[in-house]
Amino acid sequence: MPRCVVTRRVHFNAAHRLTNPRFSDAENERVFGVCNNPNFHGHNYNLDVSVEGEIDPASGYVMDVNRLKEVVTECLVRHLDHKNLNLDVPWFQDLNPTAEHIAVVCWRVLEPAVKPARLVRIRLWETERNYVDYHGT
Amino acid sequence: MPRCVVTRRVHFNAAHRLTNPRFSDAENERVFGVCNNPNFHGHNYNLDVSVEGEIDPASGYVMDVNRLKEVVTECLVRHLDHKNLNLDVPWFQDLNPTAEHIAVVCWRVLEPAVKPARLVRIRLWETERNYVDYHGT
Amino acid sequence: MPRCVVTRRVHFNAAHRLTNPRFSDAENERVFGVCNNPNFHGHNYNLDVSVEGEIDPASGYVMDVNRLKEVVTECLVRHLDHKNLNLDVPWFQDLNPTAEHIAVVCWRVLEPAVKPARLVRIRLWETERNYVDYHGT
Amino acid sequence: MPRCVVTRRVHFNAAHRLTNPRFSDAENERVFGVCNNPNFHGHNYNLDVSVEGEIDPASGYVMDVNRLKEVVTECLVRHLDHKNLNLDVPWFQDLNPTAEHIAVVCWRVLEPAVKPARLVRIRLWETERNYVDYHGT
Amino acid sequence: MPRCVVTRRVHFNAAHRLTNPRFSDAENERVFGVCNNPNFHGHNYNLDVSVEGEIDPASGYVMDVNRLKEVVTECLVRHLDHKNLNLDVPWFQDLNPTAEHIAVVCWRVLEPAVKPARLVRIRLWETERNYVDYHGT
Amino acid sequence: MPRCVVTRRVHFNAAHRLTNPRFSDAENERVFGVCNNPNFHGHNYNLDVSVEGEIDPASGYVMDVNRLKEVVTECLVRHLDHKNLNLDVPWFQDLNPTAEHIAVVCWRVLEPAVKPARLVRIRLWETERNYVDYHGT
Repeated sequence: MPRCVVTRRVHFNAAHRLTNPRFSDAENERVFGVCNNPNFHGHNYNLDVSVEGEIDPASGYVMDVNRLKEVVTECLVRHLDHKNLNLDVPWFQDLNPTAEHIAVVCWRVLEPAVKPARLVRIRLWETERNYVDYHGT
Repeated sequence: MPRCVVTRRVHFNAAHRLTNPRFSDAENERVFGVCNNPNFHGHNYNLDVSVEGEIDPASGYVMDVNRLKEVVTECLVRHLDHKNLNLDVPWFQDLNPTAEHIAVVCWRVLEPAVKPARLVRIRLWETERNYVDYHGT
Repeated sequence: MPRCVVTRRVHFNAAHRLTNPRFSDAENERVFGVCNNPNFHGHNYNLDVSVEGEIDPASGYVMDVNRLKEVVTECLVRHLDHKNLNLDVPWFQDLNPTAEHIAVVCWRVLEPAVKPARLVRIRLWETERNYVDYHGT
Repeated sequence: MPRCVVTRRVHFNAAHRLTNPRFSDAENERVFGVCNNPNFHGHNYNLDVSVEGEIDPASGYVMDVNRLKEVVTECLVRHLDHKNLNLDVPWFQDLNPTAEHIAVVCWRVLEPAVKPARLVRIRLWETERNYVDYHGT
Repeated sequence: MPRCVVTRRVHFNAAHRLTNPRFSDAENERVFGVCNNPNFHGHNYNLDVSVEGEIDPASGYVMDVNRLKEVVTECLVRHLDHKNLNLDVPWFQDLNPTAEHIAVVCWRVLEPAVKPARLVRIRLWETERNYVDYHGT
Repeated sequence: MPRCVVTRRVHFNAAHRLTNPRFSDAENERVFGVCNNPNFHGHNYNLDVSVEGEIDPASGYVMDVNRLKEVVTECLVRHLDHKNLNLDVPWFQDLNPTAEHIAVVCWRVLEPAVKPARLVRIRLWETERNYVDYHGT
């Protein structure tokens, strides 16, 4: 059977601050610039989730995109949307919420939940002009 | 010579219905939900066609994107645009027109037509938030 | 108090056919071209609903956009999404579902429902390259 | 001389919280929902600034869009970008930072700064699906 | 009969240079900056043409958007696409091709051609972040 | 440590002409069509630069996207923006400025500048509907 990759976009709005507690204030300022604002700033994140698998001959689906949307909403969006990533989300209690780290966290949460489809890419858009891809390795 | 991938987007509008004639009505409803509407619904599809090859040193092209657009229009768009995929398009006479299946059909029709360039990806957008990629295997 | 216009986008997918039962087949073909396909075609419609009013000093809102989204979903989207406009939607039983007519219908249904805010514009996108505006007159 | 409207888009990222200090906690929760999160959430705001005037016959410009961009950056973006609207921006010390209020504040700051062109519209996008227009009255 | 505004987007690619032959080199440099490059630069222009009128009860159209597209292509796009506005297009022989002037020229050419519909707005996008509107006065 | 790909979009406006000096006029016309206009045409190019590497445990970054933006601006955009690629840019003195060739040039200039991150893809959008990818081989 042919194999396809199916991608679904979801979005969430969140506040965050980039900071490393082991850095001095000056070093945090130097490394993270305006993203180190102690009062936080925020983004409209878009998250593109891609899963791969054989096309099921009965349904013609690799995975129903509405089911994929539900899984991503349940596993990720309801924990992230309208939240402060640093203060409200346990995944980032000891992890700096850079786009890279958010993408890795999303992968780890989502990978078991989309089976038997295979998660192949998490793409996180932080703005319209920059995004991060994580492929699981 | 360096090798590049050239991508051209085309679009078409079509009606379709997702259904499996071997499913009961209840099973069709369960599997396909609102997409099983017997009166059809529809989409503005965007189709991104990607071909790969060496850059021709005389033209500086892998393949002229205007030529690529003409090939895709002739081979695919004129058969799909403003059509009912289930009723008007012979390719889907016995094939459920899911995004996955449409992508595979587009690949099979297009692959010989873009030579000597090599077709490397069909990306079919069914809405602004979901798309399917097929790479030919 | 200052007055603002608040706009919310919703979307729906639908099939339709443009036709006038009083036209001959030849005239329908001449006027509507490929949009006259008796087997229907379809679109991903985007609908931008704009309401105007004073900013409420207590909430800082003209109208909560989430409330606006709920009203539009309840009044319009659940009747239009994944439907055949000609066959499934009573509003178009005797009305050709052109973008112009869909916009007028959306206005008439929505205008009383958004009060006390004042509906000021319905913008219906039929494709990424064309849309219709209706202002209620 | 013909008159035109010139529009320039700028963007900024910010955190905010919607709240009314005169509301009870229950009322704030009821009116603002998830936007009332005491730890803030955030957005990528897009701000479209429109100015109107006669085309200057010497330059062919109503107002140089690069000059307009500089004015908006100086007057607005450097005060809003990567900030917490509630905590970092004096304009919102006693003003709930709804999209409506942000638009009005932007108007009041910008209107004198774009003269002799005439500010005619502030459009603030809070997400890709909702925006607010303010025309100064 | 209800009245609607119908908008169709077309696009064209062109080179141009902003310059005033009565300015000194220094003044051209000061007023137009990098846009004064004597070797030209270029843009992908998007042009949104809006016409207004009563909905024709027989067709349900104000004006068929495909007809509108054909008129705009014939009257404007074939004269502008893949051209150097300063050197190839007679309309700009004595007129600096700023976005404002291009919009006014498009209006004057198009207004008689769309009748009996009434041209109500020319919106010219020079980049994704700036556009000019002309309403005919 | 997990590895991510970080992508940053920049843009530039430029004029160009496609031509091969060893072709006859007729052959240039046949191969390049309207893109062969001796007076040039132009585009708003978008350039998506992707770099790959381990996430640095101290910063949580593969590479700071603001640093990536600065490198791309310094190495590429300031040489290309508001230029005539054929006449103003030495890289294209003997190289036809097709999208393919621009992508390869961008790769060669940028690859050493983004180290220790690894450049993995240059994606150059010539219009909203076509782009070229170069992966360095």
